[in-house]
Amino acid sequence: MTYCLAASLNAGLVFASDSRTNAGLDHVNSYRKMHTFFWPGDRILVLLSAGNLATTQAVVAQLDRDAADGEGLRKARHLSEAAAYIGQVSLDMQRRYHAPDAPNPVSMEATFIIGGQIGDAPHGLYLVYPQGNYITCSDEQPFLQIGETKYGKPILDRIIEPGVSLDDAARCALVSIDSTMRSNLSVGPPVDMALYQANSLEQPRIVRYKLNSPYFASIRKQWGEGLRRLFEDLPRFDWEKDKDG
Amino acid sequence: MTYCLAASLNAGLVFASDSRTNAGLDHVNSYRKMHTFFWPGDRILVLLSAGNLATTQAVVAQLDRDAADGEGLRKARHLSEAAAYIGQVSLDMQRRYHAPDAPNPVSMEATFIIGGQIGDAPHGLYLVYPQGNYITCSDEQPFLQIGETKYGKPILDRIIEPGVSLDDAARCALVSIDSTMRSNLSVGPPVDMALYQANSLEQPRIVRYKLNSPYFASIRKQWGEGLRRLFEDLPRFDWEKDKDG
Repeated sequence: MTYCLAASLNAGLVFASDSRTNAGLDHVNSYRKMHTFFWPGDRILVLLSAGNLATTQAVVAQLDRDAADGEGLRKARHLSEAAAYIGQVSLDMQRRYHAPDAPNPVSMEATFIIGGQIGDAPHGLYLVYPQGNYITCSDEQPFLQIGETKYGKPILDRIIEPGVSLDDAARCALVSIDSTMRSNLSVGPPVDMALYQANSLEQPRIVRYKLNSPYFASIRKQWGEGLRRLFEDLPRFDWEKDKDG
Repeated sequence: MTYCLAASLNAGLVFASDSRTNAGLDHVNSYRKMHTFFWPGDRILVLLSAGNLATTQAVVAQLDRDAADGEGLRKARHLSEAAAYIGQVSLDMQRRYHAPDAPNPVSMEATFIIGGQIGDAPHGLYLVYPQGNYITCSDEQPFLQIGETKYGKPILDRIIEPGVSLDDAARCALVSIDSTMRSNLSVGPPVDMALYQANSLEQPRIVRYKLNSPYFASIRKQWGEGLRRLFEDLPRFDWEKDKDG
């Protein structure tokens, strides 16, 4: 499994992804799920992937080949065009190996988040479904998630809104991924992050955190201890007060 | 959808459930998902239900009828026997209305948590799957969840262990349900809870909280504000420190 998320803020975009992949329990591995396509001054695009690893790798390879030919992500005039193109490539790759009658049928599905900025157009985010169609985010829901999304959603619901700074959104993404890793073994480090400043058309700030990276470790420790303190400070039930008195 | 959970602690058992049911978006309603079977001095049993509402209501009605005849839950000698019996009743009810060839096939599946204490045997919990089979919890995983389980799992993973008091476990369950309600519209108040003291064989403490019940409201407020403060106090990224300096 996987957990990736991205937030679209007034200040720009934040992308984050874990690195755990597993094809059966005895074949757990670590792969980068964040893929970058940078043409500074013209367009900056970041892709996050979840799902069948062979499909996502085949899609990324095709995206790279097309871009090298000046096609695909290199040429798209709008983010929505890029999303539609990725959906088409994804469908092609899934169909190539789709074998529902195989003795052990395997899902070839993959889901993507593509975000960034193209020229003068505003920055944005799209989620591309395995079916090839796609959605964007909104001011009410300024973040998108793929993979194992539920464990880490509550903190995003509380913190992420369009006015949040890139740094705060990135910190919130780290907390969200930490919560997910603790509750689900199939999501694991290292964590990749990209912070893109709106209208810069420059390379995002890229960071990678392992579990023992000092900053990530300090966030994990402070959050965990703080949650426990917060919990211990919660008001008592009426009957507990009676007992104490 | 639904969210129910139960924890098995050295001190006893805690049960909690939301009350939102929906059969299509235009038919959202509120039903109690906690059902109690008390024979003080002999056996105390609490049932939590998730899934198809017609199935769960039919199962509970059958359990009631059998108990009135001195059968089923009234007679089971072990909690595991009670779990197996509930699984069988559930399967019977699902099969009665199972119609895969209907124009709009509907899932008849239901999932249950049954817990309590029978005579001298230790207290315990079982989760009964739609397939009729069942699992119990363990010291490493002393809680069970059904329905919309993921949003509320991280706080349980951090707090619930066998040594926790009934009151702390109940408070943690409230926080877990609150987080789930905030992230998922299909889980909603009121919240029902039961706290059973180990080896008492007496009726559990039963409480029900609406959103505006003073205690639940104070927990929600203090938790929400505390989380935000905790988040704001997290350490800054290196590059933020440089900016501040």
